[in-house]
Amino acid sequence: MTTTTLPTIGQIRDAAARIAPHARITPVLRSEALDALAGAELHFKCENLQRGGAFKFRGACNAVWSLADGEAARGVVTHSSGNHGNALALAAATRGIQAHVVVPEGAVQAKLDAIARAGATLHRCAPNQAAREAMCAEVQARTGATLVHPYADTRVMAGQGTIALELLHQAPALDALITPVGGGGLAAGVATAAHALRPDLALFAAEPAGADDAARSLEAGRRVTGVVPETVCDGLRALVGESNLDALRAHRVDVITVSDEETVAAMRLLWSELKLVVEVSSATVLAAILKQSRRFAGRRVGVVLTGGNVDLDALPWRD
Amino acid sequence: MTTTTLPTIGQIRDAAARIAPHARITPVLRSEALDALAGAELHFKCENLQRGGAFKFRGACNAVWSLADGEAARGVVTHSSGNHGNALALAAATRGIQAHVVVPEGAVQAKLDAIARAGATLHRCAPNQAAREAMCAEVQARTGATLVHPYADTRVMAGQGTIALELLHQAPALDALITPVGGGGLAAGVATAAHALRPDLALFAAEPAGADDAARSLEAGRRVTGVVPETVCDGLRALVGESNLDALRAHRVDVITVSDEETVAAMRLLWSELKLVVEVSSATVLAAILKQSRRFAGRRVGVVLTGGNVDLDALPWRD
Repeated sequence: MTTTTLPTIGQIRDAAARIAPHARITPVLRSEALDALAGAELHFKCENLQRGGAFKFRGACNAVWSLADGEAARGVVTHSSGNHGNALALAAATRGIQAHVVVPEGAVQAKLDAIARAGATLHRCAPNQAAREAMCAEVQARTGATLVHPYADTRVMAGQGTIALELLHQAPALDALITPVGGGGLAAGVATAAHALRPDLALFAAEPAGADDAARSLEAGRRVTGVVPETVCDGLRALVGESNLDALRAHRVDVITVSDEETVAAMRLLWSELKLVVEVSSATVLAAILKQSRRFAGRRVGVVLTGGNVDLDALPWRD
Repeated sequence: MTTTTLPTIGQIRDAAARIAPHARITPVLRSEALDALAGAELHFKCENLQRGGAFKFRGACNAVWSLADGEAARGVVTHSSGNHGNALALAAATRGIQAHVVVPEGAVQAKLDAIARAGATLHRCAPNQAAREAMCAEVQARTGATLVHPYADTRVMAGQGTIALELLHQAPALDALITPVGGGGLAAGVATAAHALRPDLALFAAEPAGADDAARSLEAGRRVTGVVPETVCDGLRALVGESNLDALRAHRVDVITVSDEETVAAMRLLWSELKLVVEVSSATVLAAILKQSRRFAGRRVGVVLTGGNVDLDALPWRD
């Protein structure tokens, strides 16, 4: 993986201004019942209510609107069958440019339909990393489209970092902040923005035990790439990026791993108590707080709920 | 049924001030996908995110805080195994007074647990109207508690009316407004407040076809009481109250009836597009808009989503 520069707070502030006409200011919700369960004051930042149903729209939108007109005219491309693909399709539509999304065979049809509905061109490839990258390179060569990587991209990280600016404006008195970590675009962007505004803030990230490469990498002091992800958290299967890992280290982000069982139980709590449809990857954060409750006890915690794109016919607590 | 005075706009404004320390200002959410489906601009007022998971907290809270200290000390009583019972329990707790909730045998255990958790005393009775009223009267006689009826109560209607004040502040440019109608506490309160602020606003109410006593009553010009409710919308089975019906008539509220099938389809849309857990009764409003889309086409419509208390193990689109 090529090295990607971490965004500065200036770039994150620019991103906030750039995406403001297109992204939503998502609400921060509270629940007496969940506060009581956690023994803490939880401030849920509801990115499941973001355009496209996930925080990914922020990064994709910042990337799309960062392009010079000439570049933009040639379109954007990414490989993702999930929220980033959909976000890039929606973001490209706000600028009236073409998005190409490389999707592996076997991806969920409903997600592909959503990406196509947003106006993107789908390119199918074999379901492995080499085939994805080859297809992306082919589309780039043929169209001149700009690659917008899901997380190893400075513009994407800056866009995701705008969540922290917004949350700290809405809930200024936080003591701690937690996000999930997959590839680490969100965790890196949020850590950078949060510590620029509030250097004393304790930062946490929640990771599925079955895809715990970030936790292992921090422990080993180098990027561990041998982890084969096995988790229901489909949004958190990516290996953490090199510069994303640097950001976790630089900002002393404490990674808490949680089992799928703990995450599914937390997901159900979010549905029943907050009345929000959140996807399973989003629930790792509450699972981590409940699991390590002593570390959060009595604190005011910002909790980033990342997305709400769920197959309503296949809820994980019913099989 | 005894006659109940409709609230004035002054009483509704007083209610807003009275409940402000306890109730939440619920967000207004939008969805590009639902706007496109409806051909209208929909502004969803999310009372599923209200304390207790339903708008009922507003009315119950206003009633509880309207009492003189001496009255309050003797507690409050109601009969409801649903959202109003839970709301009254929570509201009583905010004032540190006792709530008595009369519940019919056979009510859903999860709902009873929630009411008990909020600190109320449960009183079980046979599952019919006469037994409920007798048990309420007995509790009143024994304790001196004040009856807080779910909808035929001026203070309750005034509390529910605060939704319209809040929504018209959040989305001032609305052309129309729609709520569900069951007993009519919400519809009456909202109609009164909405027309006091904006006499030109078109008002609608959505009613299950299997409990269409409000629609029939408006058509017949008198309160029709022979309807035996048969609908999945458990929050909308009550017959519309006498004064509630007067309010619908005075404010020319147009009642649109929808089938359970239409409502369940709309509920699923609200979950998948708005990312909100809403209960089935709440979805009647979107079902009505989609069914009678010509009447809403191109308009800016305030849509009150009433509650989010759902049994996650028994979703109506999975049986």
